[in-house]
Amino acid sequence: MSSNLGKLWFVEDQTEGVSTSLRVDQVLFQGKSEFQEVDVMRTPYGLTLVLDGKIQSCELDEQIYHECLIHPAMLAVEDAKQVFIGGGGEGASAREVLRFKSVERVTMVDIDPVVLRTSKEFLKKHSAGAFESPRMNLVVGDCKAYLEQTTDKYDVIIMDLADPLPDGPCWHLYTKKWFEFLLTRLNPGGVFVTQSGPAGVVAMRDVFTPVHHTLRSVFPAVVPYSAHVLSFSDLYGFNLAYSQAPKKPFGSLTPAEYDAQLSKRLSDPEKIFFLDGLTSTAVATLNKLQRNAIAAETRLITEDTGAFLYV
Amino acid sequence: MSSNLGKLWFVEDQTEGVSTSLRVDQVLFQGKSEFQEVDVMRTPYGLTLVLDGKIQSCELDEQIYHECLIHPAMLAVEDAKQVFIGGGGEGASAREVLRFKSVERVTMVDIDPVVLRTSKEFLKKHSAGAFESPRMNLVVGDCKAYLEQTTDKYDVIIMDLADPLPDGPCWHLYTKKWFEFLLTRLNPGGVFVTQSGPAGVVAMRDVFTPVHHTLRSVFPAVVPYSAHVLSFSDLYGFNLAYSQAPKKPFGSLTPAEYDAQLSKRLSDPEKIFFLDGLTSTAVATLNKLQRNAIAAETRLITEDTGAFLYV
Amino acid sequence: MSSNLGKLWFVEDQTEGVSTSLRVDQVLFQGKSEFQEVDVMRTPYGLTLVLDGKIQSCELDEQIYHECLIHPAMLAVEDAKQVFIGGGGEGASAREVLRFKSVERVTMVDIDPVVLRTSKEFLKKHSAGAFESPRMNLVVGDCKAYLEQTTDKYDVIIMDLADPLPDGPCWHLYTKKWFEFLLTRLNPGGVFVTQSGPAGVVAMRDVFTPVHHTLRSVFPAVVPYSAHVLSFSDLYGFNLAYSQAPKKPFGSLTPAEYDAQLSKRLSDPEKIFFLDGLTSTAVATLNKLQRNAIAAETRLITEDTGAFLYV
Amino acid sequence: MSSNLGKLWFVEDQTEGVSTSLRVDQVLFQGKSEFQEVDVMRTPYGLTLVLDGKIQSCELDEQIYHECLIHPAMLAVEDAKQVFIGGGGEGASAREVLRFKSVERVTMVDIDPVVLRTSKEFLKKHSAGAFESPRMNLVVGDCKAYLEQTTDKYDVIIMDLADPLPDGPCWHLYTKKWFEFLLTRLNPGGVFVTQSGPAGVVAMRDVFTPVHHTLRSVFPAVVPYSAHVLSFSDLYGFNLAYSQAPKKPFGSLTPAEYDAQLSKRLSDPEKIFFLDGLTSTAVATLNKLQRNAIAAETRLITEDTGAFLYV
Repeated sequence: MSSNLGKLWFVEDQTEGVSTSLRVDQVLFQGKSEFQEVDVMRTPYGLTLVLDGKIQSCELDEQIYHECLIHPAMLAVEDAKQVFIGGGGEGASAREVLRFKSVERVTMVDIDPVVLRTSKEFLKKHSAGAFESPRMNLVVGDCKAYLEQTTDKYDVIIMDLADPLPDGPCWHLYTKKWFEFLLTRLNPGGVFVTQSGPAGVVAMRDVFTPVHHTLRSVFPAVVPYSAHVLSFSDLYGFNLAYSQAPKKPFGSLTPAEYDAQLSKRLSDPEKIFFLDGLTSTAVATLNKLQRNAIAAETRLITEDTGAFLYV
Repeated sequence: MSSNLGKLWFVEDQTEGVSTSLRVDQVLFQGKSEFQEVDVMRTPYGLTLVLDGKIQSCELDEQIYHECLIHPAMLAVEDAKQVFIGGGGEGASAREVLRFKSVERVTMVDIDPVVLRTSKEFLKKHSAGAFESPRMNLVVGDCKAYLEQTTDKYDVIIMDLADPLPDGPCWHLYTKKWFEFLLTRLNPGGVFVTQSGPAGVVAMRDVFTPVHHTLRSVFPAVVPYSAHVLSFSDLYGFNLAYSQAPKKPFGSLTPAEYDAQLSKRLSDPEKIFFLDGLTSTAVATLNKLQRNAIAAETRLITEDTGAFLYV
Repeated sequence: MSSNLGKLWFVEDQTEGVSTSLRVDQVLFQGKSEFQEVDVMRTPYGLTLVLDGKIQSCELDEQIYHECLIHPAMLAVEDAKQVFIGGGGEGASAREVLRFKSVERVTMVDIDPVVLRTSKEFLKKHSAGAFESPRMNLVVGDCKAYLEQTTDKYDVIIMDLADPLPDGPCWHLYTKKWFEFLLTRLNPGGVFVTQSGPAGVVAMRDVFTPVHHTLRSVFPAVVPYSAHVLSFSDLYGFNLAYSQAPKKPFGSLTPAEYDAQLSKRLSDPEKIFFLDGLTSTAVATLNKLQRNAIAAETRLITEDTGAFLYV
Repeated sequence: MSSNLGKLWFVEDQTEGVSTSLRVDQVLFQGKSEFQEVDVMRTPYGLTLVLDGKIQSCELDEQIYHECLIHPAMLAVEDAKQVFIGGGGEGASAREVLRFKSVERVTMVDIDPVVLRTSKEFLKKHSAGAFESPRMNLVVGDCKAYLEQTTDKYDVIIMDLADPLPDGPCWHLYTKKWFEFLLTRLNPGGVFVTQSGPAGVVAMRDVFTPVHHTLRSVFPAVVPYSAHVLSFSDLYGFNLAYSQAPKKPFGSLTPAEYDAQLSKRLSDPEKIFFLDGLTSTAVATLNKLQRNAIAAETRLITEDTGAFLYV
């Protein structure tokens, strides 16, 4: 069998006129839920979850993304017990939360039962037992509706959702009004973190900087940071928002202090894949282009307009 | 969900520097047998069987290919009772043979149980009940070994195999020696037909003309013909070889005579998809480029060398 | 230098979810005229003219297209002297017209000076001296306006234009009203021929059959025909419309009669590339699918609506 | 003109089964020199230089690559006067060197006159006048032969070459023997820097870590570092080798100290695009995966074998 014959390829558009192609070695699942297209395939990046044609999580480097999304927020709250995750369907965010010994309960609300079922069946390594944990409170539903219907408060709230694309379903979860609401659902000293889209030279202004700017209009302190995620074809951005001005915001610990925190807080500190103390200093340091873009950003994401408001 | 996001594509190389991409809407089966990679997918061409990265059979137009492969040979033998098919795993060749009322038994020998099993499960429309026919004698095995181990003779022998690629498994089934052997397994007046690869301006010399030339060195008469098969991205070629010089070789019947033959011989003549009498006159008429290429061909495919022999 | 490194590819969408990729070995010209994007590149199909991303003419097989477009119409008029070509910018249609000894003057009106200039510079083999012929009357302009402003009549009118895409510039040159007008510009016994888009199993209803149906509503006789053009990735369709019912419509000559006509009419009959007498019988014979589609067609292309009118 | 019609794409293979496609809006130059294929095209990343199918330099982000390649080395030598660049054909490395006021002469030796000529004509912004500088000593030739034929010594030697691919032309410029030779051509306190290929999770072991390991076997101190270069589709690696153990190796200055150095040394410190003091701390901090890979590396690149030697 000749290897130069036909092949199956997954093609993901990145920015205008730029796309990435991944050879597909196996398609494990293809389906369409009420909310999105769901695909699980084996690619050169390992088992790969794709939602609506965008790579969400690859075996190869999902730990980079998930350690970056979860660890800085968890470390920001000394004794984080109650954690909320909006989205995060494949279970890797919950997996990272559950590594923290202080956690008593992680409430994860994902809207899509197809993603949950598929992940449980095909992406066991991604969740690594999180779904079976006695500390896991998994809810299938709309995380906005869920939070609005309770008065529960959390030490850490994590949004692991799709980007706020103009026509996408998640737009309203990145607005000023929503951030104001979330602030009321944090325990004293609690933090909120959200994935914030690509953070590289071309795309950083699409989501990363307006989300940062919007959070800054609500929270007393917000730390933006980024890491390269190869399977996302770019630097990837995050914003960590503090309900109270932190003494030691993410990035200000020395590597040794950060590593000591990990050792103290994690049940398995020796299994850090990417984000150890030294790495954390680089991840928390935006490059000049990113700092300039954030400084120049003036757009607020508002719910009323469903669009960016320049102020 | 935006349609301009990532997609799954099947890419098939045609000739050097030319490829065709088909959107893959569903992958129904992916597997690797002892012999080849086997894929069944839903594409804009309908259910599509792919072996080793080459499209074999698309719901859209497989009837064009299979009517062309089977009907001229079957019509060439007035009362064809015993028919042999080498390959033809998805069952469509057998389906076409079984449309002929005179057929008592079709012996189909395909080497790949994975292709057979997959076709039965996912490509029911392709075989249309052929596998369940009491006239079907399905053998899983090497069609060469099978024929060599019996003394059975046939009215019509059909080779529905992969192209004789230099490193492929089917090379030895296109050689002069093999054709000489097949001639001994035909009943008096019997015919042999083989798919013969692409027949368009670029690729017709790869398989179509050397197979024709090789057959001509063995059989008293050989009719080459071709039809456009969109899913094969080219004109596609066939060679029909007669064990005795025919009175009415393929292409010499008037449209009315051909249609009358179909009416008499087929159980369902009204269901002709493509190759009716008028169409047959065009299919049997090579264009000037094809005739020139055949006239200029001097290569014999020999078993000894496993390569083309220029004579 | 490794051949598996990056390459330049031209990607042409065929139908929904199907595209063809050609390696680009050299880009000779890229430009944007007032009317369209114009590219000349060297591909595995030789020098290739591309307008608005659609292949128009490849060195490899443009003779198939151009002999099919021009010869049947020219042969239909015994002593064709005055010929009109709408479009045909790269000069190959004019080249084929000028092979006919009877021609006194070919008036070719192409709207795009960039196409003309580029073709003269880079595609000399395509025009083969046509632009320099003393019998050539080249006009840069809108062929519709040109014809409406004169009272000249022609023995043969040829439309070698882009397809009548809903938003394209050529729609109005495929309407019933325009065809009625053209009929008034034909000398007695004159004919009109137009390229009519792809004619294969998927796309034949896009242009081929409605153009045929519309012509049939205007002219006393119309012969549809098709040939496989590899670089167009499909069978390709034509419609030849007669101002008077012909004694010998295209396809009714025996191969010998057709070849005799070519010998008599052409200055270089020995240089026929594709469409000789035998080939003409196949080209003029639609397959069953095409005949069915034409029989079922009821759409008229009307100028008023700029859309198909079902009648 | 519909934007969903055919387009021209540049496809670059990254790693096995992963490729990046860039829309090509204009091809300004395509040629083949004695050494390589040379292309200049306009893409969504701006003017783009491609050698042998690999993107070398994009208007969008070449400053990230070139500031990272040049600045740390230049800042490492307090009063760098004599600088040598091997390769660097498009002139951007020289441009960055010439921003340093102390530089008296930059000797740039590039083997390919086609790259030089093409860059001067089409990529003026990349060189920004460097080729016309009175301090520029441009030599067309083999940088290895050049250095071997003189006894000149340099304060800074920069290798801006293609990766040491097994069959590529640059392999011998990454060997232990060559590094030993370069060490003899550095003035006291001089440094050597070389681009070192991709540094991301998949590809960092291809070039980055063995080059580091080989340099470490020759130089008393080597600092590896990396930055994300979007147009290279990965983190990109560099190695800065010191002829004497540095007091302040790259990465050990505070941001303020680094910025102060830039202000003192550059003629236009306000034009820093990417690598300012804060950014330098992140660039010099390898992530955990990179540190692990470097720690585990045992391969030396030797000239004798033209291959990696495991030691």
